[in-house]
Amino acid sequence: MEYNANNVFAKIIRGEIPCNKIYEDDYALAFYDIAPKAKIHALVIAKAMVVDFADFIEHSTADEIEGYMRAIVKTAEILDLPEGGYRLVFNSGPNSGQEVPHLHVHILGGEKLSTSNL
Amino acid sequence: MEYNANNVFAKIIRGEIPCNKIYEDDYALAFYDIAPKAKIHALVIAKAMVVDFADFIEHSTADEIEGYMRAIVKTAEILDLPEGGYRLVFNSGPNSGQEVPHLHVHILGGEKLSTSNL
Repeated sequence: MEYNANNVFAKIIRGEIPCNKIYEDDYALAFYDIAPKAKIHALVIAKAMVVDFADFIEHSTADEIEGYMRAIVKTAEILDLPEGGYRLVFNSGPNSGQEVPHLHVHILGGEKLSTSNL
Repeated sequence: MEYNANNVFAKIIRGEIPCNKIYEDDYALAFYDIAPKAKIHALVIAKAMVVDFADFIEHSTADEIEGYMRAIVKTAEILDLPEGGYRLVFNSGPNSGQEVPHLHVHILGGEKLSTSNL
């Protein structure tokens, strides 16, 4: 899928749409999901203009990959999730239910999560 | 959590327990989950001896992080998942349902996945 900078997450990065920000650095922007599926549900979107996980890994340097992954860990720490535990979910493509074609990870926690479909 | 090399995935890496292998390189070993929760359900475990995602990111170089992430993308390609789409799930700690204390990602695909709890 071609990247299209008109998606809602690109607009959030550009400040054209507001978000409930948790963390931001050169690689990522983290904010609360507006339709939470767990007691705590955050999104960490990449600053890179890539559609999904594979697109990001393919087009990024090792330092850029590290930067984004560290931002995910940092966000989970800010949310005080490490001790209780949390889930990271990357959805890619139609079967996954990916809604926005811009790389993001769901961080879910704050309660016992169902493992019925992981 | 302290890493303990007696876990089942460490034993699979050492060849002490067999697996249905999909892919292997210096950074990762991928095989089919023995209790699949989707039509296609693979695990990509890190060769690094780390408990979970945060432990891995904290104790790895950028090249090591890139290597593991590329192995995940490669595994999805071998499984012919990119076009239909797939989900990556990293579980960390008690609330997530993480069962084995050794870094692994679930790759789920081959059918439409539920988004009820992502």
